[in-house]
Formats: sequence, structure tokens, C-alpha cells
Amino acid sequence: MSKILTIGEILVEIIATNRGNGFREAVPLIGPFPSGAPAIFIDQVGKLGQDCAIISRVGDDDFGWVNIDRLTADGVDVSGIDVVPQGTTGSAFVRYRQDGSRAFVFNIRHSACGVIDLSDKMLALIDSCTHMHVMGTALYAPSVVASILTAVERIKGAGGTVSFDPNLRPEILDSPGMREALQTVLSKTDLFMPSGEELFLFAEAKTEADAVAELLAKGIKAIVVKRGAKGATYFDSKTTLSLDGFEVEEVDPTGAGDCFGATFVTFWLRGASPADALLYANASGARAVTRAGPMEGASTKAELDSLIKLQGKA
Amino acid sequence: MSKILTIGEILVEIIATNRGNGFREAVPLIGPFPSGAPAIFIDQVGKLGQDCAIISRVGDDDFGWVNIDRLTADGVDVSGIDVVPQGTTGSAFVRYRQDGSRAFVFNIRHSACGVIDLSDKMLALIDSCTHMHVMGTALYAPSVVASILTAVERIKGAGGTVSFDPNLRPEILDSPGMREALQTVLSKTDLFMPSGEELFLFAEAKTEADAVAELLAKGIKAIVVKRGAKGATYFDSKTTLSLDGFEVEEVDPTGAGDCFGATFVTFWLRGASPADALLYANASGARAVTRAGPMEGASTKAELDSLIKLQGKA
Repeated sequence: MSKILTIGEILVEIIATNRGNGFREAVPLIGPFPSGAPAIFIDQVGKLGQDCAIISRVGDDDFGWVNIDRLTADGVDVSGIDVVPQGTTGSAFVRYRQDGSRAFVFNIRHSACGVIDLSDKMLALIDSCTHMHVMGTALYAPSVVASILTAVERIKGAGGTVSFDPNLRPEILDSPGMREALQTVLSKTDLFMPSGEELFLFAEAKTEADAVAELLAKGIKAIVVKRGAKGATYFDSKTTLSLDGFEVEEVDPTGAGDCFGATFVTFWLRGASPADALLYANASGARAVTRAGPMEGASTKAELDSLIKLQGKA
Repeated sequence: MSKILTIGEILVEIIATNRGNGFREAVPLIGPFPSGAPAIFIDQVGKLGQDCAIISRVGDDDFGWVNIDRLTADGVDVSGIDVVPQGTTGSAFVRYRQDGSRAFVFNIRHSACGVIDLSDKMLALIDSCTHMHVMGTALYAPSVVASILTAVERIKGAGGTVSFDPNLRPEILDSPGMREALQTVLSKTDLFMPSGEELFLFAEAKTEADAVAELLAKGIKAIVVKRGAKGATYFDSKTTLSLDGFEVEEVDPTGAGDCFGATFVTFWLRGASPADALLYANASGARAVTRAGPMEGASTKAELDSLIKLQGKA
């Protein structure tokens, strides 16, 4: 039986309830919502009933416990989350602008998860897992990058698999050693899940087909290109398969890509066909956008079945 | 002409708009409001048209600029606020419980103002000031305590004066070296402004009159005991004067004690009689509680005059 691991930031998210540019005046907000891309990912994995764990750090404050309680309730092994007595749980304030883009105020680097080192207990947790998911957002600090690389090496070395969602903030690419770290991750990646243009981050090619061929030639087994509301395309050496997205009313897109990825990885590890994995992943991403809050729209398999049936895609 | 200095935390405050116990689930909020007890204090001083400055640190994010913009608009010299490029501005989430007590989630120690060291520019700023106000909340980190003690020594050494609002969180009292630091501050204090029971923090005596006598005998020139909505009492070697508070509808008491103190100190430095200083300070505390947000209820002199006249206390 597979057990999926991820390592990275755990945050609370505070959402402005009206649109506008940033936080230079008091505005109505709602929160704290459990958040952090790796946390959203692993929560969606847990909700599908899949064994899974996250390695991270939170402060011993309400914001840390909001996350631990939610992850625990949704079936995630939280033994790898250190609760730091004098630490502060990370946070992200987000406000949508009129054009749909987002303004953020982050507290990650100086929060409890700003440093993630691996204790012996965490190394043992890594060794109990069979799949490592690397979330690009998590590559924000040298210690976290090092911990992720260690997990990739150990899990891959023991015959496990690796998935990689680049999900990169542009400024991360220019941090010292980052391109080397990304190349190392990519060289161990079995399943690569870029969004749109991220496909070209690690390829010389200028067309999608050429970039896919180039990456598959490097040893990646499968690629899923996420296209948001438009659906997604699966590629491996034999197959190219595109599926349209679902028709839903978008309330809050944050977390949709993470839920999509979590669902695809889970079905893929369970041996589902690419068509089935893509169908469920699309349904998961679609349900995610219908709820305010990054982790609030994570779905059970029954909820995905229900949406698939409702839209006649079964 | 006097110039008033304070040193300490600058925060944003995020307020839950419904009552309850803490932040273990998403609740409606409003913020960011400029905050931090020393910042509220100095903003109220600035609004009274008094020369003043604050030494602190914020991140280069919207939360830092919310504070700098407000303090600048209200007449505070902000040249002593360092904007830390990779720093995070401090924050406090506050939620009132049904019984009126408050639950907090703080980010101070790991925020930009978690360390405040004095550059040459800041030492010059200190030397341009004639009065130092020590806010007890600001004694949260060794570097901040050291900076405050330096400012007290230099301003006092140059013939200036010192006021001290203990405003202490109980856990601070037990930090290493804290009682010694507090005794040093107290030994330099001209004007001591405790709330209620804080009068007894530094006295052996068990009654208010005895504690006041004991503290005045140590060299403190004047004591103002703050009693919230009930008003305040002024003591010096010759005078004891109690004034009732104003009748106002309380919306949010946060910051009222800081506005009270700022107004008293400002009038006291301007040579007002104890009766006048107390009257304006009471009016300032009263206006502060009528507005949501810690710094939103800071008042101009005209606004204080208006309230005093309205309630027939002129």
C-alpha cells in the first residue's frame, strides 16, 4: 500500500471579502483557514482515504492547531509536524483584485516553518512512505530544500516514486542553488505536473509537444499539464489525453491546483487509468474553486463521484 | 520645546467582529489596523500637535506601510522606523470573549520589531528628544530592553524626563533580567502611570496611599493611577486629585490606556495643571473606546475640547 509524503509550509490564510489592491487600510476579512500548498495537497490526499503524511512546523498557537486539527480529521498522519513552543504559525493574507489577480502579505520565512530540519523521527517517517510529492512553493528556504532533497533521495532509493508540481514563484528561481536543486528534483521525478507555461521551465523546446518529448526523454514517466478551468492533458510515451474541465461557479480558485494534483497522484498510485485519474483530478479541482478558503473545497471520493455523475461524465 | 520619544513594537491588529474564544475556526475579521501600544501612544501624542518620534522596525509590506503612513499623517517623526526588506511586520489577532476578556494570537518576537538595535542615526534621534516614554509591553526582547535603557539614560542624562506605563504582561516579569531592568527604569521615572493593581508591582505597601507614598519617596515626581471607565487619580508630594471618567458607549477598549497616557504626558510636559492634564487624559481615553481599532480613536485637542464641553466638564 502506498503512503504519500510531502514537506513544506503550513499556513493560515486570511481572505479579504471585498476586492481591491492590497492591505493599506482596514477591510473585512475572514479566517483563519488552514492553508499552505503542501498542506492543501496532503489534506486532499487524506480525504480520498489514502495513507499520507506531511513534515512541517507550526507554532503552539490557534493557527497551528487549526491546521493540525483539520489534517488529523481528514486522515493525514501529522506526526511529522513539530509544534514549536515559542514559534509563530505562518500566515498569508490574500485579497483578490478586480482583475482576478491576487495581492498577498506573507509570513513564511520568519514563521515556525521557515526552517524545517529532519529529526531521526522524521527520517523514520520518510522511510515509511513510498511516494514523495514535491511542491515548488516549499522551496523557500535552504533547510526546507535540503529536507525535500533528502526525502526524494531516500524514497526513490527505496524503490518509491516522486511527483513534482513546480508551482514556483518567479523570485524563487533566482535564489542561490535553486536551479541546481530543481534539476535534481526533476531528474528523480516520475510524474511532472506543471501549470501552463511551467512546462517550459525545464525544457529547451518552444512547443508543448516538443517540450513534453524532451522531458519524457529525460526519464520522466508521465506529465500532466494543468489548464485550470479548461481541464488538463496527460502525456506519457504512448498516450496523449486531454479532458475538459467541469462547469462550476468559481468562488475562490486558491488551492484548486493542489487538490487537482493530490487527486491525480492518488489515483495514479492506485493504478487507475490516465483517463480515470484525469477525470477525478478535474472534478477535484472544480469542486475546490466552489468554496471560499484554500482547503475548504477538498473532496471525498463520494463527492467527486457525485459531481462526475451530475455533469454526465461518468 | 519638548519632543517625546518611545521605543517598541509596531503591529497591525486584526479584530474578530463576533465574540468567542480564539481562532480555531474561520470567523469574520476586520483589519489591518495600525497598532502596538508604543505606536498608539505616540500617534496620540502626534495628534495633539506635540513633537514626537518612535524607534521601531517593520517589514517592507502593506502592514508596515499602514503604520508608517498613519503615524506620518498624525505628525509623528518616523525617521526612527527601520523598514526591513525581508522582514515581516508584527501582528496581533484579537477576539473578545463573551465576558469581555480577550484572546490573542501574536507575532512579535519573530517579526521585524523582534529585534531593535540602535544605529548612530537612532542615537542622534534619541539625543534630539527631551522626554522618553517607556511602555511595559515593549520589554519583550533583550535588544529592545537594552535600547530603551539606553534612551532613558541619555535623555535623563541630558536633563530630560521619563514616564513609565508598566502595562506588563505577567509572563514578561519572569524573563531573565527583567526585574532588574524594571527597577532601573523606575529609578529614572519622573511620571509613573500604572493601571489599578500595577501600582503594587514595585511597592511593598499593601494600600494605595502607602504604595503611592513609598514610590514618591523613591524619587518619582508624580503618579497617575488609571482606573479605566472610572477615571483616574493624580498623586504628587502635595496633591491628590481624582477625576471621574466620561460617559461613552464602549465599542473597543484596546488602546484607551495608551491614549490616556499620551494625553496626560503631553499636557504635563506643556505645564498644564494636574486637573487639566487629568481631564484631557480622561477625555482621550473615553474617545478611544468609542471606535473599533486600537489607534482609530486617537483624538485631536479640538475633539477632546468638544467632548469635555458636551459633558459639561469644561
